[in-house]
Amino acid sequence: MFWSKYFLPTMKETPVGTEAISHQLLLRAGLVNMLTSGVYSYLPLGFRVLGRIENIIREEMNAADAHELFLPCLQPLELWKKTGRDAVMDDIMIRFKDNRGREVCLGPTHEEVITQLVKEYVQSYRQLPVTLYQIQTKFRDELRTRFGIVRACEFIMKDAYSFDRDVEGLKKNYDLMYEAYKRIFKRCGLEIVIIAADSGAMGGDVSHEFLLPAEIGEDAILQCPKCKYGESCPEEISDNKKCPECKEGILEKKIAIELGHVFQLGTKYSQSLEALYLDEQGKQKPIIMGCYGIGVSRLIAAIIETHNDEGGIKWPKEVAPFDVEILPLQVNDQETMELTNQYYKSLQSLDYDVIVDDRDETAGRKFNDADLIGIPTRIVLGKRGLKKGKVELKNRATGETSLVGKNEVVKEVEVLLKKG
Amino acid sequence: MFWSKYFLPTMKETPVGTEAISHQLLLRAGLVNMLTSGVYSYLPLGFRVLGRIENIIREEMNAADAHELFLPCLQPLELWKKTGRDAVMDDIMIRFKDNRGREVCLGPTHEEVITQLVKEYVQSYRQLPVTLYQIQTKFRDELRTRFGIVRACEFIMKDAYSFDRDVEGLKKNYDLMYEAYKRIFKRCGLEIVIIAADSGAMGGDVSHEFLLPAEIGEDAILQCPKCKYGESCPEEISDNKKCPECKEGILEKKIAIELGHVFQLGTKYSQSLEALYLDEQGKQKPIIMGCYGIGVSRLIAAIIETHNDEGGIKWPKEVAPFDVEILPLQVNDQETMELTNQYYKSLQSLDYDVIVDDRDETAGRKFNDADLIGIPTRIVLGKRGLKKGKVELKNRATGETSLVGKNEVVKEVEVLLKKG
Repeated sequence: MFWSKYFLPTMKETPVGTEAISHQLLLRAGLVNMLTSGVYSYLPLGFRVLGRIENIIREEMNAADAHELFLPCLQPLELWKKTGRDAVMDDIMIRFKDNRGREVCLGPTHEEVITQLVKEYVQSYRQLPVTLYQIQTKFRDELRTRFGIVRACEFIMKDAYSFDRDVEGLKKNYDLMYEAYKRIFKRCGLEIVIIAADSGAMGGDVSHEFLLPAEIGEDAILQCPKCKYGESCPEEISDNKKCPECKEGILEKKIAIELGHVFQLGTKYSQSLEALYLDEQGKQKPIIMGCYGIGVSRLIAAIIETHNDEGGIKWPKEVAPFDVEILPLQVNDQETMELTNQYYKSLQSLDYDVIVDDRDETAGRKFNDADLIGIPTRIVLGKRGLKKGKVELKNRATGETSLVGKNEVVKEVEVLLKKG
Repeated sequence: MFWSKYFLPTMKETPVGTEAISHQLLLRAGLVNMLTSGVYSYLPLGFRVLGRIENIIREEMNAADAHELFLPCLQPLELWKKTGRDAVMDDIMIRFKDNRGREVCLGPTHEEVITQLVKEYVQSYRQLPVTLYQIQTKFRDELRTRFGIVRACEFIMKDAYSFDRDVEGLKKNYDLMYEAYKRIFKRCGLEIVIIAADSGAMGGDVSHEFLLPAEIGEDAILQCPKCKYGESCPEEISDNKKCPECKEGILEKKIAIELGHVFQLGTKYSQSLEALYLDEQGKQKPIIMGCYGIGVSRLIAAIIETHNDEGGIKWPKEVAPFDVEILPLQVNDQETMELTNQYYKSLQSLDYDVIVDDRDETAGRKFNDADLIGIPTRIVLGKRGLKKGKVELKNRATGETSLVGKNEVVKEVEVLLKKG
């Protein structure tokens, strides 16, 4: 991608009314744009990050034998009345009457719809287990939107649902998802804390939250600084009181943001919606369910919140919108641009995503923007270096730079991208 | 993918209340599920088709220098009041007041939002031209929903928008999109008719519609059976009256479905939303816009409507949910299953998508389901053939079968998939 032809508007100044560093960088690096409070557009660079994260999620979900589908946003309210959740979610649910006079809501989540769908097709134990998931826009009419895309009215979620004959099957699927979640967050560059949690509005017995310690969080947790064990923080523990201990030491209180939540739902939804199956003895039983959510859009904010410096974002490799940024400092110099095009083509043919800052701007502006958008590996072509046959490589995360021979660039970039 | 572990519910019977063959096959082949009238879920097989079509669109859009982004569904009504389209689209626009008392609508299209977004970033002629697109869910509160996903209340569209300094730039971008559209529909296996058209609710001067002659259509067109030239059909031409002629012969009246529409919008939106730029003389001018839509979900219906026989769907290669279906008839026979797994792994390593019908069902049921879901190439492993070292290959589109040596299967499948 050539920056001069791209739509990548960066900002020098911190936008007014933004507190969180991730919110500021999301706007300044041209990742998102606010349409109205709580409602955001993903600009091309932000859309690329979204795509990278969705790919990681898809790979791990598919590896856990979950199948992707796509459910509607528009949902009949009568389904929600059957589970009683129209009342539970009343304050944040967007609802209206359509032209036919039907009561419709915009899905804040999809337990009701997926249970109804599976009910239509599954009659026998032979059709179970099955796990289905989607990556889709959800709607919650939040009065207290926070930190840009962290708590928005319209946001992207990955929601998965497992359907089993019995509790043993549910536990197996739950474990598969639990392990897949650990891999997903690790690949996103995040050191997650997992805590046993309340089921809240979802219902069911067992549930775990996947949290990231970060200032943009809303949950208080206790974590051991040594073994990383975590648990939820009871209200009575203020900063003044002594925290409990685990085997390794005294737990510390931290603020964390919830990025994932897995639930053993049991039969809460299958009973109220009558999603039943016939077992091997021909007996009718409710399907045993689990549900598994990841806040995809807030994941982006969480990654930025924990991967930045005063210059801008430092993307973890797997979620970076591009792998390499090439900075030709003199865009009117022939050798500079020939080498730029040569590196661009070679790296693309090796399946790397490359952006070239080919704008006729000052070196200072280009360096600042490169720090801001935070592509992991940078190739800088300056006239002074080229005179000696040298090009500079920079690792955005560590700040390390090295001068390499102009014919060694592609090889050295590959080494950098494979490391760590 | 192994069918026994997949979620692919097929139906023998034609569902009640379905007229169009595409609607029947969408339901019977387990591609979509109706949640409520006009609102559909994409089941895993349908989601795969959607993904294949979206990939084709992405490739052609990116090749035409358009950049993908993702705009919100929730839109402030005040934007629509500025262009006056809140009145034009009044009958199909879903609107409500949110918890903050804001008037919000669900985007039936995105001209207003994208113009507002580009206005925020583009000040100078140096930032133009730029073309942006998205693939996203749209909402229209249709009273007369038709033929399943052909006209639905919630549907998927690709919408692109070009922003130029002048009419010459617009025409260049318009031509790029026009040619990209021809390639997209061709890759989807469709013989499209392009006609100059009214701009309707979009406004602007020049526009072209991309239509497919099919019974599920709603537009009457005139087309030359020889040179394929098409034009819109004036109301006064009934079946009794004589049709006009082109150079090659007399035009025929046909019913067609609109799949794409491109518009030279000019300054309709940039003027009412004040999206201005400074030209080289420092003079403020409205940006010149074009917009370009494809009905992604109805494209699936259109493909099925024109690619089927009494047995089911015959997917064009590029949009098929899988490239190859392997049918082991005796799933308890060791040689059968060893060969099945061997073919499966070899074809996957060659980057083909493969489904194995490993269900313990009768051969008849498996053949019927294979015809129904319509995967282009089929490998049938029967005991009788295997005794002679032979396996059957079948081309779903032509019906041609051939017996090949069991060790030649992968090579022959590659030949079949590369042909035509």
